[in-house]
Amino acid sequence: MTDAGETIGSMMDRIGREAVAAAALLARAPREAKDRALLAAAAALRCRAGEILAANGRDLEGARAAGLSTAMLDRLALDERRLEGIARGMEDIADLPDPVGTVIAEWTRPNGLRIQRVRVPLGVIGIIYESRPNVTADAGGLCLKSGNAAILRGGSESVNSSRAIHACLEEGLEAAGLPVTAIQLVPTADREAVGYLLKGMADYVDVIVPRGGKSLIERVQQDARVPVIGHLEGNCHVYVDGAADLNMAREIVLNAKLRRTGVCGAAETLLVDRACATTHLAPIVRALLDAGCEVRGDAAARATDPRVLAATEEDWRTEYLDAVIAARVVDGVDEAISHIARYGSAHTESIVTEDAAAAERFLQNVDSAIVLHNASTQFADGAEFGMGAEIGISTDRFHARGPVGVEQLTSYKYVVRGAGQVRPG
Amino acid sequence: MTDAGETIGSMMDRIGREAVAAAALLARAPREAKDRALLAAAAALRCRAGEILAANGRDLEGARAAGLSTAMLDRLALDERRLEGIARGMEDIADLPDPVGTVIAEWTRPNGLRIQRVRVPLGVIGIIYESRPNVTADAGGLCLKSGNAAILRGGSESVNSSRAIHACLEEGLEAAGLPVTAIQLVPTADREAVGYLLKGMADYVDVIVPRGGKSLIERVQQDARVPVIGHLEGNCHVYVDGAADLNMAREIVLNAKLRRTGVCGAAETLLVDRACATTHLAPIVRALLDAGCEVRGDAAARATDPRVLAATEEDWRTEYLDAVIAARVVDGVDEAISHIARYGSAHTESIVTEDAAAAERFLQNVDSAIVLHNASTQFADGAEFGMGAEIGISTDRFHARGPVGVEQLTSYKYVVRGAGQVRPG
Repeated sequence: MTDAGETIGSMMDRIGREAVAAAALLARAPREAKDRALLAAAAALRCRAGEILAANGRDLEGARAAGLSTAMLDRLALDERRLEGIARGMEDIADLPDPVGTVIAEWTRPNGLRIQRVRVPLGVIGIIYESRPNVTADAGGLCLKSGNAAILRGGSESVNSSRAIHACLEEGLEAAGLPVTAIQLVPTADREAVGYLLKGMADYVDVIVPRGGKSLIERVQQDARVPVIGHLEGNCHVYVDGAADLNMAREIVLNAKLRRTGVCGAAETLLVDRACATTHLAPIVRALLDAGCEVRGDAAARATDPRVLAATEEDWRTEYLDAVIAARVVDGVDEAISHIARYGSAHTESIVTEDAAAAERFLQNVDSAIVLHNASTQFADGAEFGMGAEIGISTDRFHARGPVGVEQLTSYKYVVRGAGQVRPG
Repeated sequence: MTDAGETIGSMMDRIGREAVAAAALLARAPREAKDRALLAAAAALRCRAGEILAANGRDLEGARAAGLSTAMLDRLALDERRLEGIARGMEDIADLPDPVGTVIAEWTRPNGLRIQRVRVPLGVIGIIYESRPNVTADAGGLCLKSGNAAILRGGSESVNSSRAIHACLEEGLEAAGLPVTAIQLVPTADREAVGYLLKGMADYVDVIVPRGGKSLIERVQQDARVPVIGHLEGNCHVYVDGAADLNMAREIVLNAKLRRTGVCGAAETLLVDRACATTHLAPIVRALLDAGCEVRGDAAARATDPRVLAATEEDWRTEYLDAVIAARVVDGVDEAISHIARYGSAHTESIVTEDAAAAERFLQNVDSAIVLHNASTQFADGAEFGMGAEIGISTDRFHARGPVGVEQLTSYKYVVRGAGQVRPG
């Protein structure tokens, strides 16, 4: 191991120890203190806007020099409006109910023991993300509200922006009398730090949440020695059943695909029941094409319009995150279910139908985090679910599935009250 | 890689694929089919008692020849009574409510979307356990009831007993028309199979549940590339507060330590408030000694009786699982809390006191899976909590904490019903 490696190791060790100490204090912090910190951080984000935008300018300069793609530059860039959105986000998190201390369930045993299941924080959460400066605030805020200490490790291209935003979070914590170590930002762009967070800090870190593209999340899931809340791809489907209302189907497909193409809840494959292919397929495909969407289809879809390209096997597996959709005809709800089981990513799928039995069959048998009937897949979002801000949509089955908000960042404990009971036998 | 390795690899691969296929069927199996399988398995366990006991005899012979300890031989040994207990256990699991399909929460959004959070199975659960033949039936039964496929890997010394019991589970599945591959037993004692289960089957296995001693669980947590529900040690504490009723405290301490010494909820350390040390310490320590318990104490505890041995630093960290207890005086509830934070294993702790404020302080600030007031730590048990049979007590914070019963072996999905809603903006 190099000298530099040893330095990073001992630095990460210190960060871990400080996070554990902060987590113990944060677990007992009253709602008022946490909300005060969030509101003070929002105020600081507005106050220090000039500073933050200047730091972001330095990041953008470096990123352009490094030849980052336009899409990556766009995710990195901040302006007054985006910064106001980040500040507003902190206020929205303050408005959420405090999950910590909530009694999830309670019951009394025949022997008189009163048992409560009570929400408690998870402890220390490591967040590994790409160069999106807003995640520094969102993730830090969600961890704080849920009583967890956060260790943030952002992308190296956003290091100046993240530091400037992080300083506002520290200012908020300080104003509320909470430990500033409750939200720590790993102060180095060295990738070795990520290795430590994933593998070397199991004594300190309770959960890792990766936020970013598939390769980041796969690396984290591969290397982590602590639990991970993963957010893999959303290869989402809309199935238009034989009994679908054509207008509703067309509106839902257009919205599911095109409202925003870069979000994980965007539809990537359209499945149309053979029973309505002659009536529904052509109008939906043409509406997509006319709206500027590329369509890659099977023979039936290609027959509807010369602009439809031929789909390959790979298309059924692809999360385009772009104005592209794969389209094919299936033999009813059962073939739709089996297509989704074979090619889907168990994220979000929707059936459009007026047939209640077909809808129930689909909702029950499609094994995805979110299944919808007569609604757009773009509703796959914590805020749209009424859960407030989210840190992502989990495609894992363990611990948290679907939108991950403050509740999903908690654990629980059992509180048992007795009157001297001992266990017989 | 050796030829033998390749053979085990392809065998484990087949087991994994079959488990995934079975899990898909089991997830949709109605309660009646699962319960019929459990009851038929119970009947087969009674019918085939002779066969099972003969197989167990062969295991015991081998284990004696291999020089296993008396405690290990006892855990391995079956007799008519124990076998009846195992069969009864399957019937108890059948009696539990089916968690699958339960609506955990439901709400309607302002836009009319109706959202339900519905329990679904986790998928495929790998169980790695030591040579306790009863785990084959218990774990298999709990996985089946919760709609999960199970891959069981028992200790090598119990291979004949496990096979004989597993045959009864298969008979039950067959009688109910469920796939026999829903509960598979890894048919080799080769340790390489464990390595595959932990590291090579992430595409098939959703969760690993280790059941056994600390070294097994640590190995599993170290090596697993899939989520683990861990059950580490129970270094449980009873704190006798200054305001404790002496008789209640003595009864609770005796029960917590001695009802059964080998269970994870057994108390291992006694903490007595300095405020009542002169009145409470001596009678409680003497009651323990008189009941045959070895006491290792600090100076104050040693002063109560010449039979008390001197405790070392190591004693505060030790889970004896035997008739031994460490005992010391602390300065009130806060020092009790910090002693537990420093030395405890976050499993189960109890405070005995008539002071409601001290009790609440303890219950809130002790960060353990189970915290009790005026009750024995031996209540740390799924059945005592009213949750039915359990697969263990999780000391993890992630996914499941405390007793792990059928509910804790599930995930959930969101079912959303609309009327054509699309997402604006």
